Amino acid sequence: MTDLAARFRKLWDSLAPVGRDADSGGYLRYALTEPERWLRAWFRDQADQRGMPVQEDGNGNLFAWWGDPAAGDAVLTGSHFDSVPHGGAYDGPLGIVSAFLAVDELRAAGFTPARPLAVGAFVEEEGARFGVPCLGSRLLTGEIAVERAAELRDAAGVSFADALGDRPAGADPVLLGRFAAFVELHVEQGRALVEQDAPVAVASAIWPHGRWRFDFQGEGNHAGTTRMADRRDPMLTYAFTVLAANKEARLRDAHATVARVAVEPNATNAIPSRVTGWLDARAAEPQTLHGLVEAVRAKAAERARRDGTELTLTEESATPLVAFDGGLAKRLATLLDAPVLPTGAGHDAGVLAAHLPTAMLFVRNPTGVSHSPAEAATDADCAAGVTALARVLEELTCR
Amino acid sequence: MTDLAARFRKLWDSLAPVGRDADSGGYLRYALTEPERWLRAWFRDQADQRGMPVQEDGNGNLFAWWGDPAAGDAVLTGSHFDSVPHGGAYDGPLGIVSAFLAVDELRAAGFTPARPLAVGAFVEEEGARFGVPCLGSRLLTGEIAVERAAELRDAAGVSFADALGDRPAGADPVLLGRFAAFVELHVEQGRALVEQDAPVAVASAIWPHGRWRFDFQGEGNHAGTTRMADRRDPMLTYAFTVLAANKEARLRDAHATVARVAVEPNATNAIPSRVTGWLDARAAEPQTLHGLVEAVRAKAAERARRDGTELTLTEESATPLVAFDGGLAKRLATLLDAPVLPTGAGHDAGVLAAHLPTAMLFVRNPTGVSHSPAEAATDADCAAGVTALARVLEELTCR
Repeated sequence: MTDLAARFRKLWDSLAPVGRDADSGGYLRYALTEPERWLRAWFRDQADQRGMPVQEDGNGNLFAWWGDPAAGDAVLTGSHFDSVPHGGAYDGPLGIVSAFLAVDELRAAGFTPARPLAVGAFVEEEGARFGVPCLGSRLLTGEIAVERAAELRDAAGVSFADALGDRPAGADPVLLGRFAAFVELHVEQGRALVEQDAPVAVASAIWPHGRWRFDFQGEGNHAGTTRMADRRDPMLTYAFTVLAANKEARLRDAHATVARVAVEPNATNAIPSRVTGWLDARAAEPQTLHGLVEAVRAKAAERARRDGTELTLTEESATPLVAFDGGLAKRLATLLDAPVLPTGAGHDAGVLAAHLPTAMLFVRNPTGVSHSPAEAATDADCAAGVTALARVLEELTCR
Repeated sequence: MTDLAARFRKLWDSLAPVGRDADSGGYLRYALTEPERWLRAWFRDQADQRGMPVQEDGNGNLFAWWGDPAAGDAVLTGSHFDSVPHGGAYDGPLGIVSAFLAVDELRAAGFTPARPLAVGAFVEEEGARFGVPCLGSRLLTGEIAVERAAELRDAAGVSFADALGDRPAGADPVLLGRFAAFVELHVEQGRALVEQDAPVAVASAIWPHGRWRFDFQGEGNHAGTTRMADRRDPMLTYAFTVLAANKEARLRDAHATVARVAVEPNATNAIPSRVTGWLDARAAEPQTLHGLVEAVRAKAAERARRDGTELTLTEESATPLVAFDGGLAKRLATLLDAPVLPTGAGHDAGVLAAHLPTAMLFVRNPTGVSHSPAEAATDADCAAGVTALARVLEELTCR
């Protein structure tokens, strides 16, 4: 094990038990609950040890400064502490741990940045507690209204304002204006780096994506007595649509998932009157995504005609393509000799990309699994991530 | 409209509003709730008007007697008042209304039975309140333990014993021994009589049927970032199995339905870790049913191999073939010049068939729909049902 990998492991172990569920091995680190508050205290402690003053922005986001915040043109790096239910260890925390270790690397090399450098921890990135992902970065950038954010409630009815201890501050153009760039390091949520045999990649874009609700209306009837030919069974149309979405996505190198379903009445011996399925679809290009959803719709509608059911399609959300700063991505890929990859997942970097030059680094995940205890990264790859991040921060702050 | 059809309509209208949901047009007549208690009072009133003493058996079943119960060799007819949630008007009550009108027809013709004749109303046939279908007939015949029946609870936690007002009496061999035959008239729960252009049929059998649980285990993952090729998505195996069950049933002239599903975690952006589907399968012959379930299992297992998922199959219940008394069915079919049909649904007649010669008559249902407000029967066909039932009762009680 290299010295850096050993240092990574030591720092990593200091937060590994926090919020870990003994049964699943996954993490329950919801924003502003006890485990995440422990991690926020850990953040302050790590910043203190490095002589980096910590600023809380009034929205729940933390920033530890190396250099004078008021100097402007700062480079921000970091990620988030919160997890999805029973999520993996690396999604979020790896970006913060790597940021502190990158600072150590730069200092050990005797580097002094020509601009301020900040390590950030954004609140409620997953949206697992209050329902809106990237809540902290959306508040900072003004992409969500303070009134709405304050009143978001968790499953127990606690509002975000109550959890925060105050009404969130909302858009902060002064703070935002101090940052000239943001770099988020994140564990990869797929296996592209395994196949490309590389430990680190640079992100090109976040795929356009959305959610579409397919309501299939049929005719409730007795499962025991209704002849097959007399049925109008919406479960058949649903099942066909699930398989069609999979096939159409494969044909287009896109992603389509039907992972959520609601059935009325959902009783073993009653042919359903209605089945609703939700399609999550993502693709590299908006036109590919549009073509994918249209193809699934057409196949579902054709099958509905055969089944005697009726299809109603509703777009519940659509997020356009987030293209990270092309010049920055190219510069970092050249610097690191790293591949450039798109991602299908949303991140705080996707929110900030609309406001300042933003880049992401991905660290190889051997399982490719994400939002699950099976998410993984080797210490050697995490060390390679720290090295890459340190080089990027040096490049961006050297003048 | 014939006189009999008009008499049917008048008696039918007297109970049509009871327990009807104004929004769905369906009925909420759960056993021993207010609407069903109203119908039980209506039963006593109809019996009183005809000079038929009413006996309650201590299990919640009612019997109105024409003739001396103690004479033995009685012929029983009737059905049930209770409904499934938002069920149709005819399922159950048609058999009781038709029984009283058949008594009127026999008396108007000057017929005097040589044996006692009883009109019965069984409690909780649908199992919609306490979960066990044919509860009243199962108690009377001793096919369910009193201890278990007493402790069955509805959704509000009320036990069957509390609803009944007493611990159920359970098996009553003396009462059961007084019946020499049972004939249940029921609305058809399919469209066979529409196609055969006949108003009434005689039942041959209740198909063997059962419920099988298919658990598909996959790997939870991120719907946005996981490439299609890297997935182990159990929703795909489930969907394929739904379509396979439909196809295999059609090939065999059997019935297969997957109407209930449970998904973990059932979130739009999370490939499920587990999907469970319940198969309801029925066929005319036990070997056909076995072949159907085995074919669905084999197709599901093959698809599971392709999807990288794992299938566990569990038989949750299996009910063997109920063959109604063959001699009696043939005799009634000849008497009525009516077709003989099997059914896929359970009935009190199916429970009693193990204890005494039992037959069923079906009345044509233009929609073929059952357990739904769309269930229907014309007044003319209901009158034909009364005429057929009167002829059957005359035949069975004339000596």
